[in-house]
Formats: sequence, structure tokens, C-alpha cells
Amino acid sequence: MTDELPSVELARAYLSRVAEPPAPALVAFIAQHGPQRAAALVRAGKVPADVAKVTSARARIWRPEEDLRAAAEVDARLVTPEDDGWPAWRLLSFTAAAIRGRADAAEPVALWVRGDPDLAELTDQSVAIVGARAATGYGEHTSAEFAHGLARRGFTIVSGAAYGIDGAAHGGAIAAGGRTVAVLGCGIDVPYPAGHTRLLDRIAGAGAVVSEYPPGTRVARHRFLVRNRLIAALAEGTVVVEAGLRSGASNTAATARTLGRMVLAVPGPITSAMSVGCHALVRDGEAQLVTSVAEIAESVGRIGGDLAADPEVPVRPTDALDPRSLRVHQALRERAGSTPEQVSLESGIPLGQVRAVLPMLELVGLARCGDTGWRRCSGGSAPRKRAGGGPTTSIT
Amino acid sequence: MTDELPSVELARAYLSRVAEPPAPALVAFIAQHGPQRAAALVRAGKVPADVAKVTSARARIWRPEEDLRAAAEVDARLVTPEDDGWPAWRLLSFTAAAIRGRADAAEPVALWVRGDPDLAELTDQSVAIVGARAATGYGEHTSAEFAHGLARRGFTIVSGAAYGIDGAAHGGAIAAGGRTVAVLGCGIDVPYPAGHTRLLDRIAGAGAVVSEYPPGTRVARHRFLVRNRLIAALAEGTVVVEAGLRSGASNTAATARTLGRMVLAVPGPITSAMSVGCHALVRDGEAQLVTSVAEIAESVGRIGGDLAADPEVPVRPTDALDPRSLRVHQALRERAGSTPEQVSLESGIPLGQVRAVLPMLELVGLARCGDTGWRRCSGGSAPRKRAGGGPTTSIT
Repeated sequence: MTDELPSVELARAYLSRVAEPPAPALVAFIAQHGPQRAAALVRAGKVPADVAKVTSARARIWRPEEDLRAAAEVDARLVTPEDDGWPAWRLLSFTAAAIRGRADAAEPVALWVRGDPDLAELTDQSVAIVGARAATGYGEHTSAEFAHGLARRGFTIVSGAAYGIDGAAHGGAIAAGGRTVAVLGCGIDVPYPAGHTRLLDRIAGAGAVVSEYPPGTRVARHRFLVRNRLIAALAEGTVVVEAGLRSGASNTAATARTLGRMVLAVPGPITSAMSVGCHALVRDGEAQLVTSVAEIAESVGRIGGDLAADPEVPVRPTDALDPRSLRVHQALRERAGSTPEQVSLESGIPLGQVRAVLPMLELVGLARCGDTGWRRCSGGSAPRKRAGGGPTTSIT
Repeated sequence: MTDELPSVELARAYLSRVAEPPAPALVAFIAQHGPQRAAALVRAGKVPADVAKVTSARARIWRPEEDLRAAAEVDARLVTPEDDGWPAWRLLSFTAAAIRGRADAAEPVALWVRGDPDLAELTDQSVAIVGARAATGYGEHTSAEFAHGLARRGFTIVSGAAYGIDGAAHGGAIAAGGRTVAVLGCGIDVPYPAGHTRLLDRIAGAGAVVSEYPPGTRVARHRFLVRNRLIAALAEGTVVVEAGLRSGASNTAATARTLGRMVLAVPGPITSAMSVGCHALVRDGEAQLVTSVAEIAESVGRIGGDLAADPEVPVRPTDALDPRSLRVHQALRERAGSTPEQVSLESGIPLGQVRAVLPMLELVGLARCGDTGWRRCSGGSAPRKRAGGGPTTSIT
């Protein structure tokens, strides 16, 4: 182990390469030790078995400076959970999903970003529009029209920059003078898909191009599925415009549901194979049918609206916590620090879950990690920026 | 009042003309007095105010022989509740709806029928397919395909013989060698729509053309809406293929729901005005989205399937009754007859509802109307022909 710890940026850049996302064990390990110490420990191989399992293959690759330089060459930078622009509220839903037993749910270690680095603000009011690459003219038209109309209403359009529905969505938002975010399944400096190189430049100029993969990471099928969880997470609701029966878009929709997000589906002719996935989502009760921008805005807006209702009920900061998180919170002490192991013993909640809950409690101001360990906070100043974006939505 | 009572057929033919349907007061009056006595009383003007209100204008028009002759000229005959072919199980839902407070719900006084007079058997396994007259090619194609596929699976296709979706549905069923029923909003001898004269002949040959209006009754807008309730009632489920936002098809769908029937809607392009009504039905939770014959068969079949489940639970004939009907049943005596007024007093159920419930109880074998009034039956031989067609479905 080196005597001096790396900077947070170098540490996160290193950690973003050391494990293939999603890496819940690594994310929990970073939350426990902080990114700088975690990076040093991973590099030195001084990690528990679950972390070693996902980091050992790449632990010795130390090239954060090179990665940051490669990113800078395409005008990209690293945004970390320690930055103001980190979309903490949106990504909290991963912690909530993990608490509910979704072991594969994990927020990214860091995000490589071209364009506006304030992802928190950029995705504050956002809708994901996703669908088939082999879209029909009907689907592309619908995607562009919806993105255009939603962008004009102030929604940021999140999508995956693919051919077909994705590209039409980004294009519609840009044409409306609105904002849009593309989440990639490869390195931020990898021009994919090749035909969308210019579109990606325009997206970066009208919002941001985002990837959790370090520069140079090549396209791979499984990375699109992993990437899809970020598209779902970064938006309040996901609209599936066209999708085959087993498609990436249906996968994004499933993730969105897991994360407690609204899923909407656009109908089409029953004779179109590209609408089969959308119809199945509606029939199975997994998506709400939508046919217009107004319906989407109403559906997505409703999430916050419901929670904002009944203002006479006093809100305590812990009201948003599910029973397990509450037990973790109660196991903490105000005046003395505890290790996650102590909290696990005290609360009876398994250590892995305690490690997932603690950083979430910290994010909402209900816990703090100091030199002596984790302490309880009253949470009086919990950031309740938007009724629909907070942990209440995600955890329920 | 004449000394001799008319035959049931003449009485029902007269009563089918004397009030504009739906005529719940008249139907209840007939149930109370029997058709022959009721006809004589209506003709003599010796009726309560609510019956007088709907019959006084036409009470003196006595032309049942002429009507039966006019019907015979187009090979039609009168089917009455006293006939074996009367679709009693299907029409029971009106009684059930009336009990639930739907004052406008009333079964027809009689049905004028061209083709197969055994409507009970003909509609035993049936699906209604309805939709816009100004249908698109997509809609007509879908209607014909669905009707064809359902007819091949043994379903009778019920529709309204109109241009567009209706005509395509009848045609699809006939092309499949299946059975189909057209319900008209005018007299059985009125060739409407003019362009469907030959289609109506073919429908009569492949099932039945049905109307509750006496011969010669002209087409009127309100009669289509009244007719729609019969289309909904005569089928286990109603499929809306294409519909504008406020359309006759949406009206049929609303009636179908009132009658406790399954409503299904076919999606289409969001750019098509003819699919707006279908999408609204799905969005509002008033219809289930369907995209194939298999899905329709599954949805409609499910009605009976659910009820047929758990065969170990012993079934008593009165299990199917809702609380009010049960109280009426219990207020009857086995060994002595009661008037509806006595039953109302005994049960505490309002007289109007008692009058609606008693004929229903008679149909399911739980009551009998004799010379001395209504008596209770044990219902041991209650006709439980099909789990899905009985009063359980309709009343719940």
C-alpha cells in the first residue's frame, strides 16, 4: 500500500476501470472506506473476497491519469459522487433496489461526461425514450414528436444514442432547442454507433453524453443491458416507443420498474412486429399505455404530485425509510462512531445490507461517516428538493 | 278488457310495439302479470302510472297479426321469453344490472328473428366485435381476421351489421364457415344499411338477424344506442376494434361493463383517429388490450374458467344470488303463493326491485309463479349449463 493516498478524481478513475459494472460489492466497499482509501486497498489487493472477485483481474492496471487525458481529448471529464453535479437523487434508487434484494442493482463508481457535467440538474425533470434500433417510420416519427413536445415542456430526454427510436428521440429534443442525455455502453471516446458521431457531438452540446465505462472500452452486448439501468435510473419515467418481444427496450422497462420508475408504452398496429413488445407490456400490466405528449407529462408528473399531496401531515426525515433502513438508522449512535459490523450486530441486519444502507442514509442526511465510524444524524436538513425525486419514491 | 286473453305470441307481438325499448316498467309489469294478461291490461289502459307513461301513446294500436305476417314475409318469426330458444342466461344480466340500480337496463319484450330461432344455443359461446363505420383498412382487416379466427374456434360473432368494422366481422365469421348474429336498430324487415341487404341474407343463413323492434320500425339514432345493449348482452365479451372518442362502439363497451361483460380493445397507430377510442378505453382501465385471436379466446374463456375452478366446494343453487335476491328468495314460501307486494313487505326490498328479482329467480329455478302467486323452489334442478353464462357472472 502506498504511503500517500491518490486524489478522489484519480481514485475514482482507477476504480471505474478496476471492475466491470455493475459492481455492487465494490460500490459498497467504496462507501465503507471512501474512494481514496478504497482505491489504495483494491490496488494492494487488501480487500474482502467479494471485492477481490470482481477487482483482482484488473487491480494492477493503474492508469487513471491516462484515462483522464484520453477523456480530455474528447472534451470529457469525470463526474464523481463527490461532485455537486452527481445525480445522487436519481441514483439513490439503486440503493433502494439493493435493499429490496436486487443484488445486481448498483450505482456507477463514477461517470465519464461530455457536455454539461451538472447531471443532477440536467436530469432533474427527465423522461427516457427508448425503443428498437430496427424501428419503423411510425416509431421514429413518434419518438421524435414525443421528444420534441416533452423537451418544449422542459423535460430532458434521456436515451441510448442507438439507431432508430433512440436517435430520433435525441434529434427531436435537439430540434426543439431542448436538452438531452445519451448514456453509452462503451467508452466516452468510442464513436459508436459510427453513423451517429455527429449526433453524439450535438447531444454533448445540448446536454451530455455519459458513460460509466473508462475511455477505450469497446462495445459489447452485455454492456448495453448494463447501460440500460442507467437510462432508466436517470429519468423519472421511461417511454417504450417500439420494441420487439424480447428487446433491450423491454429490458430497460423491467429495470425501470425495479427502480420504482414509471414505465409507459406506445401502442401501434397489431400487425407490426415492432409494437409487439409494447403491447405485451401493457397487457401484462407492466406499462401504462400512452398516446400523446400530454399523457406522458401527466403520467410522469403524477409521481411527484401524489407525494406532494396532503401537506398537513408532518413529514419526518425518517418517514421515507423502509423498515430495514430504519433499523440501521436506529442502530447508529449520535455521539460515537460505529463500524458497519457493529451496526449489523446491533440491528440484526446482514452486514452486506448495512453497507448498502449506510451511504444512502448519508446521502439523505440521516448518517455521517467520520474518523471514528458511522454516526446518526437527525436529518433535519435532508435535501427534499423535489417530492418526486427523493428516496420516498425510490424506496416504496 | 276483452273476455278472452290473446295467445302468448300475439300478446308479446303487441307488447313489442306498445312501448319504445328499453321499457323496464313494461317488462316488470309483464313479469308480474304474465304476457297475456299484461297485454290485455295495457290495451285496456288499466296499468300503473309508470307503465301508462310508456304505453299510452300506442296502447290502442292492436296489430300483432299484421306484424307477424310482415315478419313472415321476410322469413322472420317472433321469439319470446316463453320459447326454448330465448337467450335467458344472456339476458339475465339486465335483471342483475337493474338490481344494481341501472334503471335503464331492461331486457327486450320479445325478439324478431330471421334465421336460427334458437338464440340461447347460438349465443352460448359468443364474442361481440364492434367498431366504427368509418373504419380504416387496418380496422376492417383486423375485424375480419379476428372474426374468422374466433368463428373457427367455435365462437358465434355478434355485431350490428353496420358498414366498417361490423360488416367485416360478420363477413369474417361467414367466410370461416362459422356462425354470426346481427342485432338491428330497426324493424327486421327494414333493409338497412341498404348496401348490406345481401350480407343480412347471408347472416340469417349463418346464424340470425335479430331485432326487438316490430316490423317496419324505421332507423333512428337513439335506436342504435338502445340496440347496442343487446349486442353487449348477447356476447360473453365485446371486442372494440376501432372507435372514435365518443362513438357507438364506446357506448356498447360501457354497456358491456354495466352488464358485467368483458370489454377488450384493439390498439392501433396513435396517429389514427379511429384508434383513439380504443386507446382511451385501455388507458382508463375500462378495457383490456388484445392483439390476437388467442388473446381474445383466453380472455373471454377466462370468465367461465375462474368460476369453474375449485370443484371441491359444494355449490348450492342460491350461492349465485346477491344479498338482495337472496332476501327475496327467503321471503317466499314453499307451500303458499305470495304477491310481489307481500314479498316486498316480508323482505324489506322495494316493490320495484322485487318485481325485477322474481322473474330472475324463476329463470334459475328458485321460484315459480302459479295461480296463487309466487312460491319458493329449492332450485335443485337449476340449469347450470355453463359456469360462465349463469347469474353468478352477471350479478357479481
